[in-house]
Amino acid sequence: MNSSKPACVGLVTDLYELTMAAAYWQCGKSQDIATFELSIRSLPPQRSFLLAAGLEQAIEYFERLSFNEAEIDFLRKHPAFEGVNPEFFDVLAGLQFTGNVWAVPEGTIVFAEEPLLRVTAPVIEAQIAETYLLSMLTYQTTVATKAARMVEVAGGRGIVEFGMRRAHGPAAGLLAARASYIGGCRGTSDVQAGFELGIPIYGTMAHSWMMSFEEEEEAFRQFAAIYGPKTMLLVDTYDSVEAVRKALRLRLPFRGVRLDSGNFTELSRQVRKLLDEGGRPDALILVSGDLNEYVIATLAEQNAPIDLFGVGTDLVTSRDAPALSGVYKIVEIESGGQSRTTAKFSESKISYPGKKQIFRFFTPRGEYAHDVIGLATENFPSTEKLLEPVIENGRRLTVLPSLEQIRERVAASLARLPERYRRLEGSDAYPVRKSEALQDLLESLRNHYVPMPTIAKPE
Amino acid sequence: MNSSKPACVGLVTDLYELTMAAAYWQCGKSQDIATFELSIRSLPPQRSFLLAAGLEQAIEYFERLSFNEAEIDFLRKHPAFEGVNPEFFDVLAGLQFTGNVWAVPEGTIVFAEEPLLRVTAPVIEAQIAETYLLSMLTYQTTVATKAARMVEVAGGRGIVEFGMRRAHGPAAGLLAARASYIGGCRGTSDVQAGFELGIPIYGTMAHSWMMSFEEEEEAFRQFAAIYGPKTMLLVDTYDSVEAVRKALRLRLPFRGVRLDSGNFTELSRQVRKLLDEGGRPDALILVSGDLNEYVIATLAEQNAPIDLFGVGTDLVTSRDAPALSGVYKIVEIESGGQSRTTAKFSESKISYPGKKQIFRFFTPRGEYAHDVIGLATENFPSTEKLLEPVIENGRRLTVLPSLEQIRERVAASLARLPERYRRLEGSDAYPVRKSEALQDLLESLRNHYVPMPTIAKPE
Repeated sequence: MNSSKPACVGLVTDLYELTMAAAYWQCGKSQDIATFELSIRSLPPQRSFLLAAGLEQAIEYFERLSFNEAEIDFLRKHPAFEGVNPEFFDVLAGLQFTGNVWAVPEGTIVFAEEPLLRVTAPVIEAQIAETYLLSMLTYQTTVATKAARMVEVAGGRGIVEFGMRRAHGPAAGLLAARASYIGGCRGTSDVQAGFELGIPIYGTMAHSWMMSFEEEEEAFRQFAAIYGPKTMLLVDTYDSVEAVRKALRLRLPFRGVRLDSGNFTELSRQVRKLLDEGGRPDALILVSGDLNEYVIATLAEQNAPIDLFGVGTDLVTSRDAPALSGVYKIVEIESGGQSRTTAKFSESKISYPGKKQIFRFFTPRGEYAHDVIGLATENFPSTEKLLEPVIENGRRLTVLPSLEQIRERVAASLARLPERYRRLEGSDAYPVRKSEALQDLLESLRNHYVPMPTIAKPE
Repeated sequence: MNSSKPACVGLVTDLYELTMAAAYWQCGKSQDIATFELSIRSLPPQRSFLLAAGLEQAIEYFERLSFNEAEIDFLRKHPAFEGVNPEFFDVLAGLQFTGNVWAVPEGTIVFAEEPLLRVTAPVIEAQIAETYLLSMLTYQTTVATKAARMVEVAGGRGIVEFGMRRAHGPAAGLLAARASYIGGCRGTSDVQAGFELGIPIYGTMAHSWMMSFEEEEEAFRQFAAIYGPKTMLLVDTYDSVEAVRKALRLRLPFRGVRLDSGNFTELSRQVRKLLDEGGRPDALILVSGDLNEYVIATLAEQNAPIDLFGVGTDLVTSRDAPALSGVYKIVEIESGGQSRTTAKFSESKISYPGKKQIFRFFTPRGEYAHDVIGLATENFPSTEKLLEPVIENGRRLTVLPSLEQIRERVAASLARLPERYRRLEGSDAYPVRKSEALQDLLESLRNHYVPMPTIAKPE
């Protein structure tokens, strides 16, 4: 993904990550091995689950984590680093990621406080990665989740992501196309996503095409002459129903029509009737224009004869919940052979200590029953452990799943999440508990604030 | 800006732009000169003005608009283009932008329906640019506007953009840093924005730094030993007030403290008192954590002794209004020496025909009085014409203003916008009218749907 792959990504971070890196090095901690976990502190009120996405780009980040000469030079001369021993910049110039990463596979259903990703590495490497990882994983997770909500209520009708023009810059558009596809969309309008990621691309025609002709009939005729039975006619430039009549009267080849304004329930019924009576029961109706999961649910409930929804703004910006409260917290630090778990106790922002694992329990019918967040060293029979190793000593461990495989995981996972946990509104809260061992560890830290012996074997 | 500058940007577009391009070519329209205008259909309810931003990246886009061999090959083989004469792809392979662009300078205050940018070019070139331009201009405009709202109510206190981790991918983070700086922020945490754009970068320390030490004192001491009087101490890891006492007791050099949780009004007063009594009346108080313009306004009204606000999520996602209704509409087309203006009349989505200009009227005191959207050929005495030529025959016309100059324009412009039009809530609607000539043109099109003689001289 070009736009998310600058040659060097070291500077794509917050300043404090680098000033802390320098300070770790300068006070002799650069050999300390830190473990950080990335999780979502709480779900937005409008969400009852999340679909993890963005891991492939996170792994690419670790593989590219480096600084070029010009970047090192910039840092060396920047007043923020006055007081830092210049040798630190030589260290930074040679930096590569050498640590271990565990993560939940893309397309996994996760909930608040569950670690999506765990990094164990020399503290500088692990620290610097924070900003990029949070941005990449939480954005794709946000969009994949939003897409899944739309697909869920569309009743088998297809959703196509049309949102590039509304994304937070073109690079966000590409990420949105990927995440939407993971979440179950049929494809995207973004050609770059087709080229770089192999995602199916969709398109119709714009009002500008229509308006560049003096007559609507001529605009239809010319397009259909080239694209034949692939043609999707935009019919709302002047009068949607009249335009469909014209297309039928001209006996044009076309695949379907796009409605972009008006009352979609009424209009789709009128248009369906015209198409059926005109001998085109096979012609598709695509609807676009300010759609979201609530509008789609209403149209589906009303049995509006719509085949495809083209969704933009609400999908790619996740308009009702455009951000997740992602955090990347240090949970353990090994220094001079001693390991110490760490926690944070500031008001309403507690972080749990120690390397963790998510244990998913199932009902006898195989549905998701509840999760336990426990220590990585724990074991619960008949559960699935969601975090898997993906990078070891800086090297990618496995062939990553294709987008098609991730989509299959999503479909299979959502089918196992009981309906009461995945409603648009008023879902029950899926039960997630902390294990007793994890709670005990937190309490012992709270009571003592003292070094702890190693509680987890190195992974 | 690396992340917004892939080598070729031709594929960064919606599929329909390219299928329409092929169709324009194939039906003999590729020599037609189209004029498109980009505007915001309506302001979100939470906004009373917009600060235009992103033009520099839009100009870079036009300079880079091209397709490489692999991209052409992808399109040539894609089933969506079956039926297209293969010669079209040779045309596309040689495509460069050769047209004219007019735009409002970055940092200009604009309102709904006012064209921010006008492109006049061979129809294929103008059409393909739609998707990228909308995404780039509307996102930066969104964030610059949000930043200005925060700066406005902060009562002289500084706002720093800390939002990269919450942005919609790392590339959006870079754009957000730029737009926030335009909107009046003091700087950003994003190091890349410092390196690539020269924006001042800011940082403190994270909880992970604190937690990597067994004792809070030691964490402070080590950091201050390196960064001395630049050190910003994060004090809320365990107990904010207690931590400030520790820092004073240790007689550390530091520039200030960061509060990241708690009741900021009370806490900042307690901390200010401690700092003053401890001989550090010069020490700064920076506050971070889920801030937005409403929280900042409240803290400012309560005279909370806060010097700097670090704002993330709400700023970079513009959480309460994460998208603008940007449109890019064809307004005129010249074909075979004849010019015809175009409009769209579908329900509630009217677009006005013809090349336009924004005329800004002033009060005798020099404040903004009202705007008239008129035809580019019109003239109104004593007004400022907001749209200026920026690209002619594909070539950049002027040296673009620096970010500092754009910031000055923003400050000067906001000072001329009467207070009643720039309140956080309940602003009056700034008066924007269409000129009589523009309204007459629309009506004549509505009545006739017929070719019009040239109404605007070529620019």
